[in-house]
Amino acid sequence: MSQKPRLISFDVCPFVQRSVITLLEKKVDFDIDYIDLANKPDWFLKLSPTGKVPVLQVGNDVLFESAVINEYLDEVYAPMLHAKTPLERAKHRAWIEFGSSLLVAHYQMTNAADEAAYNTARETLYKGFARVEDVLSEGPYFAGDTFMLVDAAWAPLMLRLHLLARHGLEDFTAKTPKVSAWQKALVARPSVTASVDSDFEGKYIRRILDKGGYSAGKLAA
Amino acid sequence: MSQKPRLISFDVCPFVQRSVITLLEKKVDFDIDYIDLANKPDWFLKLSPTGKVPVLQVGNDVLFESAVINEYLDEVYAPMLHAKTPLERAKHRAWIEFGSSLLVAHYQMTNAADEAAYNTARETLYKGFARVEDVLSEGPYFAGDTFMLVDAAWAPLMLRLHLLARHGLEDFTAKTPKVSAWQKALVARPSVTASVDSDFEGKYIRRILDKGGYSAGKLAA
Repeated sequence: MSQKPRLISFDVCPFVQRSVITLLEKKVDFDIDYIDLANKPDWFLKLSPTGKVPVLQVGNDVLFESAVINEYLDEVYAPMLHAKTPLERAKHRAWIEFGSSLLVAHYQMTNAADEAAYNTARETLYKGFARVEDVLSEGPYFAGDTFMLVDAAWAPLMLRLHLLARHGLEDFTAKTPKVSAWQKALVARPSVTASVDSDFEGKYIRRILDKGGYSAGKLAA
Repeated sequence: MSQKPRLISFDVCPFVQRSVITLLEKKVDFDIDYIDLANKPDWFLKLSPTGKVPVLQVGNDVLFESAVINEYLDEVYAPMLHAKTPLERAKHRAWIEFGSSLLVAHYQMTNAADEAAYNTARETLYKGFARVEDVLSEGPYFAGDTFMLVDAAWAPLMLRLHLLARHGLEDFTAKTPKVSAWQKALVARPSVTASVDSDFEGKYIRRILDKGGYSAGKLAA
């Protein structure tokens, strides 16, 4: 591809991280620009119909939604990280969407003002992982030996829950051994560790502590 | 394909309708089963990780999320309704997701308890259509002469807003002439008219009137 893509990002956004992991897996040369989501610049609002990140600029074209961006990257840059058959691809896409719903539950869990809100999000996470446990391969990745788009999509959630457990929160994968092994493989993947800055752990935990919600009370900085 | 797909549905669900339109465009022989979303059967909860419709069963495999199901149908049944290049496909996929966000705004608008909630959803719809106006072709469909997946994805929203305007609610496409012309082409498309039962209009309007919210007060049955 002749045009160097430009990813527009917010520094701890898990949805952007999905695209960064995919770009790194494919060794694509790309630019990345960070915006302040609490104070979005006008040029960004003109560019993005949803006002959300990630946005990928390719020449004069604008792509939005992390799953869409990753499908695009997979179609134009080797190696192919999608499943080989239409049915398997569709299942991976469905589980990518399911992963998005658990990212929302993770957000609600870390933002929960009280124990009741925390428990609602907590239950969504445990139930979700029980569903994933039923469809996971023997590992190390979602579908076996090869790291795929579905792995890139889940890695940001898995990394965050891994960091929360390191800082004293419960281990949401404790009841699901395959999910737990998958999490270990994902957080150790070079593209995943390289997809965040070296100060990510501190920044991520600090942000939750600063929110001062129910999760913050259970965390040790 | 040897296996007849089975679509699991809820009778006025716009997300299921996207898949029905796609199946009709491709003249696929399929089964459809309706469930009561307010009282989901156990077999459905076992099948669906999200608890949402549509679900597509293909033999022993289960697909969920309307965009995922439509991508699958497009990969296995002719004619191809997706754009021809990776960049165009990605743009269509992004606008399909944007259409989903406006379906959510439509739901919030028809459910609004008061004028303030109505106006919030109303503004999302008008702003969204202004964005779409900028990217629409000269018509009749999203990208020109050919009805595509992105058209199938937007038709359920367009049909509902068309019916609301017929029953006295404001015309949300009034400020965007290309969107308005696109809406007319979509609601006249045979696959769209055939995708709902003959009593859909009455059922859809009745459901909003029964909610008794702000929109109901503006509608004439």
